[in-house]
Amino acid sequence: MSAPDPIIRIADLPDRVGQTVTLSGWVTHLRSSGKIAFIVMRDGTGVLQCVVAKKEVPETAWEAFATLTLETSLQVTGVVRADARQAGGVELGLSDLAVIGPSALDYPIQPKEHGIDFLLDHRHFWLRTPRQVAIMRIRNEIEQAIHDFFYERGFLRVDTPILTAAIGERAGLFSTEYFDEGNAYLAQTGQLYGEAAAAAFGKIYTFGPTFRAEKSKTRRHLTEFWMIEPEVAFNDTHANMRLQEDFVAFLVRRAVERRRAELLELGRDVAKLEAAQTPFPRVDYGDAVKTLQAKGSAIQWGDDLGAEDEALLVEDYATPIFVCNYPKEAKAFYMKENPDDPRTVLCDDMLAPEGYGEIIGGSQREDDHDKLLARIREEGLPEDAYSWYLDLRKYGTFVHAGFGLGLERTVAWICGSPHIRECIPFPRMMHRLRP
Amino acid sequence: MSAPDPIIRIADLPDRVGQTVTLSGWVTHLRSSGKIAFIVMRDGTGVLQCVVAKKEVPETAWEAFATLTLETSLQVTGVVRADARQAGGVELGLSDLAVIGPSALDYPIQPKEHGIDFLLDHRHFWLRTPRQVAIMRIRNEIEQAIHDFFYERGFLRVDTPILTAAIGERAGLFSTEYFDEGNAYLAQTGQLYGEAAAAAFGKIYTFGPTFRAEKSKTRRHLTEFWMIEPEVAFNDTHANMRLQEDFVAFLVRRAVERRRAELLELGRDVAKLEAAQTPFPRVDYGDAVKTLQAKGSAIQWGDDLGAEDEALLVEDYATPIFVCNYPKEAKAFYMKENPDDPRTVLCDDMLAPEGYGEIIGGSQREDDHDKLLARIREEGLPEDAYSWYLDLRKYGTFVHAGFGLGLERTVAWICGSPHIRECIPFPRMMHRLRP
Repeated sequence: MSAPDPIIRIADLPDRVGQTVTLSGWVTHLRSSGKIAFIVMRDGTGVLQCVVAKKEVPETAWEAFATLTLETSLQVTGVVRADARQAGGVELGLSDLAVIGPSALDYPIQPKEHGIDFLLDHRHFWLRTPRQVAIMRIRNEIEQAIHDFFYERGFLRVDTPILTAAIGERAGLFSTEYFDEGNAYLAQTGQLYGEAAAAAFGKIYTFGPTFRAEKSKTRRHLTEFWMIEPEVAFNDTHANMRLQEDFVAFLVRRAVERRRAELLELGRDVAKLEAAQTPFPRVDYGDAVKTLQAKGSAIQWGDDLGAEDEALLVEDYATPIFVCNYPKEAKAFYMKENPDDPRTVLCDDMLAPEGYGEIIGGSQREDDHDKLLARIREEGLPEDAYSWYLDLRKYGTFVHAGFGLGLERTVAWICGSPHIRECIPFPRMMHRLRP
Repeated sequence: MSAPDPIIRIADLPDRVGQTVTLSGWVTHLRSSGKIAFIVMRDGTGVLQCVVAKKEVPETAWEAFATLTLETSLQVTGVVRADARQAGGVELGLSDLAVIGPSALDYPIQPKEHGIDFLLDHRHFWLRTPRQVAIMRIRNEIEQAIHDFFYERGFLRVDTPILTAAIGERAGLFSTEYFDEGNAYLAQTGQLYGEAAAAAFGKIYTFGPTFRAEKSKTRRHLTEFWMIEPEVAFNDTHANMRLQEDFVAFLVRRAVERRRAELLELGRDVAKLEAAQTPFPRVDYGDAVKTLQAKGSAIQWGDDLGAEDEALLVEDYATPIFVCNYPKEAKAFYMKENPDDPRTVLCDDMLAPEGYGEIIGGSQREDDHDKLLARIREEGLPEDAYSWYLDLRKYGTFVHAGFGLGLERTVAWICGSPHIRECIPFPRMMHRLRP
């Protein structure tokens, strides 16, 4: 074994009170009063106040202090002192200080209000601010929690392809030339591959980017977003919903338990998250339509729920809810016909509370070869492209169900963020391809 | 809390000896001798022998047995019996049996040799075979180990964008129309974004698909492959290599500890993996060239190492090795000039033993604004596209280093697989876009 990471980070300092340490970071705040000066620095793991007393540092260090600007990178040496008033409970009494890299005076992100387009143009710097750091730490926690949840339950992660062959004229597909094979299309979902994998491995999930070339400019749409798509052999729609609620409740608990400081940084009302206890209510689509009509919505039986309908519906609940068994024409061709009402399919959308809307779409899959083929023909999809998918129903078909969770929408809800563009490191939207 | 997954899987049976259980799966082998018959079934979590005694099952079950074919899906009920001769140490004495979905007699994957193109055309079924299941379980273990390694060490996972704006004419880019923004390109790396994120969060890693539109047909190339790219603020090239060897040794140990059965299924010599102890040897590029010339290679100082050179070089070692500090012209523009020999850069390739070749490329990054700008101009890259990347050197530049690990190449080495096309669920190659 080689030595552990020898670099000391701000997050390590609470364990080093009384020690002299050297560490590096960037300036976020400066103030001085005569012979004593304060540097607040960050290194990505935390924030640290450094105290510079003129008589305790070399002259070069005192002179270096005078040159510091916002986001100058520097190396400091000093004694770690307990101070309950400081973030992390420590501060550093400097014995030396050196500039690593100066920062030009026109650093774009200043301590004032900036417009959202300006911030997105400078996303590489915007990510350094406390709110964005908190959101990204929560995103990281949720991602690890997703992997832990499935790993501990014996699911196999399956990385489905991004580049896929033609599957018929569908809206919102990005395409690219693929050697002599014609066009390839960027996957909107890994589900079809996930179904094949469920037959091979029993319980699987995907975790990857998906793409929608849609001209949507809402606060809930990205052209590139991350999706998690579990698929389970022999699960029916009921087992599917039980898995979904256990999964989402697990993610929320994990964020609350391990990222409480970041949630508080965001001003999130943690009690509202703690209310997300299972089981989540099941609302039949038909009942949802009646409730919405009573609340003044123009929705008619057969329509999909719009964002406004979703917000109206969830206002009566403190937990996420399921809306179940939508009309066939509102949903995708692969969903299993509901034997109790063949106008509908065995599916569910999970809607988050507080108006956050759909975070999951799930369904039992059509496992009858002939019914699936009929649906493919009804939709005018090319049978040839789906032959391998139909194969799964021709050789040992099986009851199975799965769902897709949108990562950024889930992070936005847990963070209480009004816009998913701050819930992914470098968002991609209709007019946003940089940086 | 709702109920746990109520479905019993083959992997659960060792804890249920003596119990009567019902479970589902697919037929892999059948044999019978008069009044007793055997069904070997799989459900993705394991393989189970079911014993059918004619006098102990209903007549419908005995008749159902006669209809079974390869990959028929079925539901069985029976008593779990300990039997040390069986996989998992148990077998099932059936009391009932029902077909869920018949399987047509022309099931493509038969118990005989198939050509690789045929197998790839039927990847959705090929994945069900024992060797492929073992590889995918090992891949899953390595993926989880990667997340655990970084999570436990305080790294933040950062999902960098796949769709990126033009960064100059480079070979091997897939492109797609992006609304009114011109073309977008599929990322070959997340590194540049990773560097921005390292300045925000200190220690980060990426984990996602990357793309190369290269007309390579070797056993080591895919057009779509998964890459893990850590980036660490204030790490120099030496700390970077220590992180790499600790990381790779951790992945190998984890596979050996938790997936020994699968490695044995593949016929892997586990002792060769156990030899991968840190520290890994560091070989200077110049010394590597001399060694290769002495072994008969035509390589000249200045050339990159080809696959054959890599294989020649590693034959003297039982562990992975580093080849360090390549000539500038053989490597990318962002690598930091070596102060001890400015003809070279502070970089390393990690080569796996047994001829597996490069699994990691890493470097300290050029942190000098003017030197980086000069390199961008030398390469004829568009300065404007790199302005945000140059910004990182203009406002508080910092020593930093990182690397990229190719997931499929690492899985191939650990599995002892001769071809990475079986180390990803649905491989994409020059002539392979389906299924």
